[in-house]
Amino acid sequence: MGKNIVQSKRLRVKVALPEPPVRTLWWDGKELCLLDQRVLPGRERVLRLKTAASVYQAIRSLQVRGAPAIGVTAAFGVALEARRFKSQGVKVMRRKAEQAIELLEKARPTAYNLFFALNRMKEVLSNSERTPEKIMTALVSEAEKIYLEDLRSGWEIGLWGKSLVKPGMNILTHCNAGGLATSGFGTALAICYAAWNDGIRFHVYVDETRPVLQGARLTAYELQKAGIPCTLICDNMAAFLMSERKVDLVVVGADRIAANGDTANKIGTYGLAVLSRWHQIPFYVAAPLSTFHPEIATGLAIPIEERDPDEVTTITGKRVAPKGVKVYNPAFDVTPGRLITGFITERGIIRPPYPRSLSAIFRKG
Amino acid sequence: MGKNIVQSKRLRVKVALPEPPVRTLWWDGKELCLLDQRVLPGRERVLRLKTAASVYQAIRSLQVRGAPAIGVTAAFGVALEARRFKSQGVKVMRRKAEQAIELLEKARPTAYNLFFALNRMKEVLSNSERTPEKIMTALVSEAEKIYLEDLRSGWEIGLWGKSLVKPGMNILTHCNAGGLATSGFGTALAICYAAWNDGIRFHVYVDETRPVLQGARLTAYELQKAGIPCTLICDNMAAFLMSERKVDLVVVGADRIAANGDTANKIGTYGLAVLSRWHQIPFYVAAPLSTFHPEIATGLAIPIEERDPDEVTTITGKRVAPKGVKVYNPAFDVTPGRLITGFITERGIIRPPYPRSLSAIFRKG
Repeated sequence: MGKNIVQSKRLRVKVALPEPPVRTLWWDGKELCLLDQRVLPGRERVLRLKTAASVYQAIRSLQVRGAPAIGVTAAFGVALEARRFKSQGVKVMRRKAEQAIELLEKARPTAYNLFFALNRMKEVLSNSERTPEKIMTALVSEAEKIYLEDLRSGWEIGLWGKSLVKPGMNILTHCNAGGLATSGFGTALAICYAAWNDGIRFHVYVDETRPVLQGARLTAYELQKAGIPCTLICDNMAAFLMSERKVDLVVVGADRIAANGDTANKIGTYGLAVLSRWHQIPFYVAAPLSTFHPEIATGLAIPIEERDPDEVTTITGKRVAPKGVKVYNPAFDVTPGRLITGFITERGIIRPPYPRSLSAIFRKG
Repeated sequence: MGKNIVQSKRLRVKVALPEPPVRTLWWDGKELCLLDQRVLPGRERVLRLKTAASVYQAIRSLQVRGAPAIGVTAAFGVALEARRFKSQGVKVMRRKAEQAIELLEKARPTAYNLFFALNRMKEVLSNSERTPEKIMTALVSEAEKIYLEDLRSGWEIGLWGKSLVKPGMNILTHCNAGGLATSGFGTALAICYAAWNDGIRFHVYVDETRPVLQGARLTAYELQKAGIPCTLICDNMAAFLMSERKVDLVVVGADRIAANGDTANKIGTYGLAVLSRWHQIPFYVAAPLSTFHPEIATGLAIPIEERDPDEVTTITGKRVAPKGVKVYNPAFDVTPGRLITGFITERGIIRPPYPRSLSAIFRKG
């Protein structure tokens, strides 16, 4: 990965980062460009979104997914809407931007980054700018700032986390906590990229991650692109690998983290955490601070999205289960903080006891 | 299910059994008829097999699967081959039957029932019959005996196991340990059928069971046919259900059981056993004695079949993972006996300490 300066005059920051492994989304000055994650790895199709409604649809339909990427995308959704109604004056524009925020808040319930990003957009919107041009500039600027912060967070998660990766290790990951789940570097995979960049050689087991197969479709694709050796498995094979001592480290991402460390993440994460504890394998969660929701005490307060039964009964457009069969399809589960060896964040690795260690970070912040 | 007398003059037994819930396979006097499990639940296609080679292919390609059903099918494969070469004299016929046994032993490595059944066919073949007609009759008769014994075993497993099923329970099962995995009643599902028949009302969670989706395709199909309420889940959702106290009992089948209770079964079983122990949920294995291999001390001696990567990367004919990705696809795992609450067999429920309790059964037998 060659060095690349990601720069934003409005931010007045210069972040020296390497080129990210994937280009998940970008703002071209007028539109939000998004790599369509529904059609990967078969096709690399770029969507060009112009409205909050299309951004809402892209999030709901999983064309973009991964908690940090959802947050960044939603922020641009608000900026797009303001841009669209700029010519109709401050009042209409504000109302449309507010409606966009209301709509986007309903796109998906679990990932906290969505609310983190929209709250920041709300704050910018409610400040004192008085001309349409200034309001739009402020909103676009804030969305870009959220984007760049996420890009940098991912890189920094990698820098902190790479110390956990030793030569010859077998790392297991679930779902896609890669570049595609963020502005570009990922969370769990950022650690792999950073370690690999340092010349550390290791191997990754990739859970395919039913029902939407983000592991098979996205994580395998990313790792293959980066030249990191990986092996795809079905979710139900991880326990067997662990029993054969073929897994040295488990790293996953997160959708929302409560004050006590309880972590909502892709369905299947909780099972992996129990299995890791049983086999005495370190189990880490990699996430930027924008995924933490310290105002909620425990995971009990995290809403768990239940998705369409078709995701389970129909694969690549073909029905696999008998018609009329009942399905339970929770998209996430909650792993208790006590099963988590540590949180890898852009501020460092935070270890138990939670909530104390976690709340210290937020007091500092 | 109406009462039905399954009768065999050769066996000189009369087994009063209800009609089995599915017709997995049957001998029509000339050919082996087999419900093609590759195309279920979309199509109910019956294959008519005439040669050992076609039986070998049906087993390898999973047109028939499930340890007891594999054993019964292979036994008929030997009988078919003897029948085919009957006109060529005793010597040719014997050689062809022996070759059929050698071929069928290589069909799949893990399920012990295959070797149990083929060993019995070997014994019949090596006895003193001297005319082609008598040899053929003896082989067909032995295959029918294995079939009927398996049918009865399934029913008896149900009778013993139904005491574990309480009204309102949620039972979790993995893969298909149903009628389709046996001559007709199943093992884990035999318990459900027997309890349901007694008027006990409960609900079953069905693991879809990647990669071949035997749960989604076969177990959901069987339970739906029998009118037993069930809910399909992805394998990685079971842990979350357990954490929400939505699973009261786990029952699975088996492919091979060592003297100490170590049990090879469909990949994912071991993980469920660990998760059941973690959540203090009873975890039972239902299997006929033909699945037990008491000559091997532990599960370490059980060969684990690794199957084609395409099973993981390609679903319903469409590729889901990037080309060239490495895959690990073990078809089975081994659950240590110490994680198993009990074995439900045709002789009763066998509880720890293993191997003592298990070896007592085989001493009696």
